Amino acid sequence: MNKRKGNLMDVRADIKVLDATIRDGGLCNNFEFTDEFVRELYKMNVRAGVDYMEFGYRASKTMFNEKDYGKWKFCNEEDLRAIVGDNPTDMKLSVMADVGRCDYKTDFLPKKDSVIDMVRVACYIHQIPAAVEMIEWFHSLGYETTCNIMAISQANSEQVSQALNMLNNSSVDVIYLVDSYGSLYPESASDLACTYLDTVENTGKKIGFHAHNNQNLAFANTIETLSYGVSYLDATVQGMGRGAGNCAMELLLGFLKNPKYNLYVLFPFIEKYMIPLKEAGIVWGYDLQYMFTGLLNRHPREAIDFTAKKRGDYAEFYKSLLENF
Amino acid sequence: MNKRKGNLMDVRADIKVLDATIRDGGLCNNFEFTDEFVRELYKMNVRAGVDYMEFGYRASKTMFNEKDYGKWKFCNEEDLRAIVGDNPTDMKLSVMADVGRCDYKTDFLPKKDSVIDMVRVACYIHQIPAAVEMIEWFHSLGYETTCNIMAISQANSEQVSQALNMLNNSSVDVIYLVDSYGSLYPESASDLACTYLDTVENTGKKIGFHAHNNQNLAFANTIETLSYGVSYLDATVQGMGRGAGNCAMELLLGFLKNPKYNLYVLFPFIEKYMIPLKEAGIVWGYDLQYMFTGLLNRHPREAIDFTAKKRGDYAEFYKSLLENF
Repeated sequence: MNKRKGNLMDVRADIKVLDATIRDGGLCNNFEFTDEFVRELYKMNVRAGVDYMEFGYRASKTMFNEKDYGKWKFCNEEDLRAIVGDNPTDMKLSVMADVGRCDYKTDFLPKKDSVIDMVRVACYIHQIPAAVEMIEWFHSLGYETTCNIMAISQANSEQVSQALNMLNNSSVDVIYLVDSYGSLYPESASDLACTYLDTVENTGKKIGFHAHNNQNLAFANTIETLSYGVSYLDATVQGMGRGAGNCAMELLLGFLKNPKYNLYVLFPFIEKYMIPLKEAGIVWGYDLQYMFTGLLNRHPREAIDFTAKKRGDYAEFYKSLLENF
Repeated sequence: MNKRKGNLMDVRADIKVLDATIRDGGLCNNFEFTDEFVRELYKMNVRAGVDYMEFGYRASKTMFNEKDYGKWKFCNEEDLRAIVGDNPTDMKLSVMADVGRCDYKTDFLPKKDSVIDMVRVACYIHQIPAAVEMIEWFHSLGYETTCNIMAISQANSEQVSQALNMLNNSSVDVIYLVDSYGSLYPESASDLACTYLDTVENTGKKIGFHAHNNQNLAFANTIETLSYGVSYLDATVQGMGRGAGNCAMELLLGFLKNPKYNLYVLFPFIEKYMIPLKEAGIVWGYDLQYMFTGLLNRHPREAIDFTAKKRGDYAEFYKSLLENF
């Protein structure tokens, strides 16, 4: 049986906190953050002791028109540098590259010429071969790499085992367990995390967790999986992220005992930048419609549509989900 | 090491779900629910398969003026019967009696003359002797009894051990672990629950859990403690309860696998009765100010005051809590 690592009083020096507010939160506002917002978030993250800040996606410009999105869907090198300069801080920067939605062979500089430290490759479980190809490419350019296997709650254990073995034989640094649908419970998330951890034992590879809050379990699942040895932890300020959102950074930093993390600096930022976002009508966070899709282990798209239409007929919506199961 | 009981697919036949919406939710609206609300909640709970419904407190009328509160602070027998008649259902009814705020020797009928099935005695840990006296009284009248030891996160393990031993020697049927301040994590809640469970092993006594959602962990802590053998589970519709509220009934019934529970019937009730409550200005649920008091393991009174004043200066409020630690 896997044992918990450390305890509720200890510092776990292996923990790395990644702020994904712009990247996952960008799915709520089409990545249209002001430069001031992004710059202040960057400065706040540095002060908070956050280990990585993810700026967004580096999406294909042949597939997506730059005019249709805010700049953080593309994370052009010059846009990053306009915010962070040469990033003269201890905080590392990441971008996400989706399998099949990224021109990775043309759109990335060698690491020595880029301000980006880590590229996170996101894929569904049937796309692992494509993900591995991208990971090797990014590794050869000099980047740290992760593989974020999405929607893991819909994969069977055979698939998980094969995917983990393929990644174990790759150059990837971190493998992320991603609860895209917010359907895992602390017990199932921990069991899965232990499978991941067992696979990479003694390889030097690390395991990460990315939560969604459909059943109000994003924070709980994050700290439960971390207690068994998961060390890369995604969070977003006030949980800002698609649908029900993510693990809230303020809850996570409140929990972690390492004095390098500074919780307080989040609150002036929240007051000045997050509350106005909400007041301007950007919507995210736990609500019944997201609980329904989490409980039923399915994509939140119908719940996002329910939210966008400001519907309140929860019972009808739940029935419609059951009828289209 | 304590092991989980059952698994995520099983029915745990020992589970009892208790709806505390009127009792804990009444702390949000001075117990001023309409009769229609309470009657429809009662009918809905019966249809949902809820095992116990708590109607409120039976508070002392010498200490509290009936004119100052809604009727569910007192739960007069005739007010209960106006809602439930003789309660010709499988659902049992409970009321809460606070140590020191209840005239228990004069205000309770013998069980055979009352529609109440269970009396829950709430106390702080230094009040166990008074609680035991009340428990024996209620037991002699024929009621099922629980002891709800509040604010357990502030007790030390010596106190917990002594309290549990005293209760183990009493007639109490169920001992509740109560996370009044919402400061427990799944790991600490489970560890405490295992201490409770170990104490009552082979006695026939059961362990319950009552959560608060200050750190968005009410549901997580409830299902984690249940996985180790806790069997009496408190929940409220949409988590309605003091401050950050409680474990949401819809999340709990969505999780439980026993086909006796019917999740769907909650949603028409929520649409018709809960959403209007919120729209009328009754406030509860997770927010930063409650996270602060949960994290700092203290009473939510300052956070409730912050909420009532519609303050938004989270950073100042957090600082003020640190200064008055």
